[in-house]
Amino acid sequence: MTRIVDLSNPELQALRRQTRAEYDAFRGRGLRLDMTRGKPAPDQLDLANEMLALPGNRDYFAEAGDDARNYGVLQGLPEARALFAPMLGAPAEQIFVADNSSLAVMHDCIVWALLKGVPGGASAWGSTMVQQTAPAFICPVPGYDRHFALCEEYRIRMLPVALTGQGPDMDAVEALVADPSVKAMWCVPKYSNPTGEVYSAETVRRLTAMRTGAADFRLFWDNAYAVHHLTGQQREIPSILDACAAAGNPDRAFVFGSTSKITLAGAGLAFFASSPANLAWFMARAFKRTIGSDKLNQLRHVRFLHDQAGLMRHMDRHRALLAPKFRAVEAALDQRLAGTGAATWARPEGGYFISLDAVPGTAKAVVALARDAGLALTAAGSTWPNGHDPHDSNLRLAPTFPSLADVTAASEAIALCILLAAIEQQTAARGETG
Amino acid sequence: MTRIVDLSNPELQALRRQTRAEYDAFRGRGLRLDMTRGKPAPDQLDLANEMLALPGNRDYFAEAGDDARNYGVLQGLPEARALFAPMLGAPAEQIFVADNSSLAVMHDCIVWALLKGVPGGASAWGSTMVQQTAPAFICPVPGYDRHFALCEEYRIRMLPVALTGQGPDMDAVEALVADPSVKAMWCVPKYSNPTGEVYSAETVRRLTAMRTGAADFRLFWDNAYAVHHLTGQQREIPSILDACAAAGNPDRAFVFGSTSKITLAGAGLAFFASSPANLAWFMARAFKRTIGSDKLNQLRHVRFLHDQAGLMRHMDRHRALLAPKFRAVEAALDQRLAGTGAATWARPEGGYFISLDAVPGTAKAVVALARDAGLALTAAGSTWPNGHDPHDSNLRLAPTFPSLADVTAASEAIALCILLAAIEQQTAARGETG
Repeated sequence: MTRIVDLSNPELQALRRQTRAEYDAFRGRGLRLDMTRGKPAPDQLDLANEMLALPGNRDYFAEAGDDARNYGVLQGLPEARALFAPMLGAPAEQIFVADNSSLAVMHDCIVWALLKGVPGGASAWGSTMVQQTAPAFICPVPGYDRHFALCEEYRIRMLPVALTGQGPDMDAVEALVADPSVKAMWCVPKYSNPTGEVYSAETVRRLTAMRTGAADFRLFWDNAYAVHHLTGQQREIPSILDACAAAGNPDRAFVFGSTSKITLAGAGLAFFASSPANLAWFMARAFKRTIGSDKLNQLRHVRFLHDQAGLMRHMDRHRALLAPKFRAVEAALDQRLAGTGAATWARPEGGYFISLDAVPGTAKAVVALARDAGLALTAAGSTWPNGHDPHDSNLRLAPTFPSLADVTAASEAIALCILLAAIEQQTAARGETG
Repeated sequence: MTRIVDLSNPELQALRRQTRAEYDAFRGRGLRLDMTRGKPAPDQLDLANEMLALPGNRDYFAEAGDDARNYGVLQGLPEARALFAPMLGAPAEQIFVADNSSLAVMHDCIVWALLKGVPGGASAWGSTMVQQTAPAFICPVPGYDRHFALCEEYRIRMLPVALTGQGPDMDAVEALVADPSVKAMWCVPKYSNPTGEVYSAETVRRLTAMRTGAADFRLFWDNAYAVHHLTGQQREIPSILDACAAAGNPDRAFVFGSTSKITLAGAGLAFFASSPANLAWFMARAFKRTIGSDKLNQLRHVRFLHDQAGLMRHMDRHRALLAPKFRAVEAALDQRLAGTGAATWARPEGGYFISLDAVPGTAKAVVALARDAGLALTAAGSTWPNGHDPHDSNLRLAPTFPSLADVTAASEAIALCILLAAIEQQTAARGETG
């Protein structure tokens, strides 16, 4: 395809008529498609159906002899912590097993930091709000809307920093963290939501070594897609806890993870992993809140996955179901948009999303066109703090939940909407009306 | 028995020698007994062993067609909310199903109130801390140590109010709530922890109708023992939500409950129930924290208990196991202490504890004597705010977890320790040494 901006006026108008006709034809099919959320598909959940009858009648003793049915064992069963230690890049002793939501663990870290402070800090993070300086989080963009929603909820300032393909722009990050009111940074270091990029070793090194104005600065290290590969080549990143310790900042990282996209999205395990000092802080707070997480679900996970090898075999089964969906999106985008200049998009090697940048100023128009054609897309702007993308460009595509046939149809429609929005914008820019 | 204070000096010394000898004999048995925590016994957990294999393979669709394995249904499955609606005294639409810990739900209400405020409030509860007036909770005493620990954690002032056998001293409560910094009150209205008392209808009425200085005052209504009867005569209290609505204060109560002492202590369901306005507030906060609770565990509970009749049948089975343990404690106390004036104790008709008041100034001594004889008791003072009982009198006995034989042996030892401590105190008061 020729770049849209390079088309002559008659060529542009011809392409506009043709694209509109194709769009109208798609709309006429009356489909109802949804590419909004990163949910596993039913066939992925089927992979874990065996868990529905686990641990099984009379199987409730943990290895150390604890009755998993009763109260206690606040930190979580040792065998469950050991099972997920490689995924979390932390020794089992430095892992806490929570309930089913890592977002909840992040939430709790934030409210505890606001109300109680964290190790190494002179005061609670919320106490600075009194002095009119709300604490701030650095927010690589595009990023995860639920991270940003937590900051909005608790009036934490958000400082966007561009992602580079190797992680965040570290020059910008290093400049921002000099401010002592900058208390933390959101990081999805591997197969990032939504760009799919993997933080480079150099990015990780600079994050662990940078000088921060706040003595109690924390990386909120949401390693949500640690084992969620989409290719046979599994990308790995350094253990952030080891790297922080090596850099002389052992307490810098809070690590979060879960099995929501490994076993069962609504009934998985979530994890907190960190330095001994941070873990002690977390456990002291958590023990005010609960007598312990659901240990039977921990046992259920151990009985089902067994060990690291079992976990990796299980993730291979997910990959077999997911990779074709991602390839279908990329194929549709390639076919319709390659060379047009209407969009650039990621080709993630893992994770749950494809990030796409449409022509600046068209993302909302694309979502509206898609909606009118029966296709739900994540709202434009949702990958930015406060739901506002200043470029009105980024779109997050979530191809995991629909069937492969629906993903294929939806992807063709998305490409069409992106192309049409770019053509309309170019047409308007030339002062012409159709 | 004669009252200890009425004994002649020779009689007192004779009783002292005899009691010491019996205590030494008990200590010599080298037992290791634990009456510290309100945990279900293994035979109680066995009652729910069927749940270990539920919901069962391929059983994951909720009534409305939702896939209970996946994300979503933030409020909880309608059938799970309906099942526990009678227990909570709330319509299913006004119930939220949380994870396994009602303490966690209380915790979250507190941190959200501190950071965000509650409906009807002009500001977040924590904002008054800036003005040197920390928010306060009224704390009926003796009460639940983990309630008080939450207040300690978040620097909430605690205002103790005496319990009367019909609930808290309402004259004292009504006087305290005139202060607008008094934001809330802990209530365990039925089979209270630890006194076992049941709030009277008049107490409930006054709690709902009283004028409060704070427009956003809340009753933290921890109805933990709603269906935990120890006798065939089931005590009932009015629905606090209905009573608040009738009194024109529909948003006054936050209701908490759980199945921790119904199904599996570490793997139950917890609940929040309240007015529509409070529920909307709670859900808006909760949806920042999580995409939803574990719905498979909700389905598991529905499949196991079926309905209100099934729930009550299940509680009858608990009662058959628990009532003998409570009777054993009471028998031992009666036999050894009746008429001595060394203690008064409750005869609860439900719940998990027996509250005992030893001679003022002896509770710590009793716990120390018990410890030396191999018997762990809850620390003296733990039923009071900040762990400090100004009378050094109250003891909380938890007879549910040990076997009946152990409860019997422990109760005899407890009675002996209480008697010995009272005798030693009386001896010291008379200026004599043994």
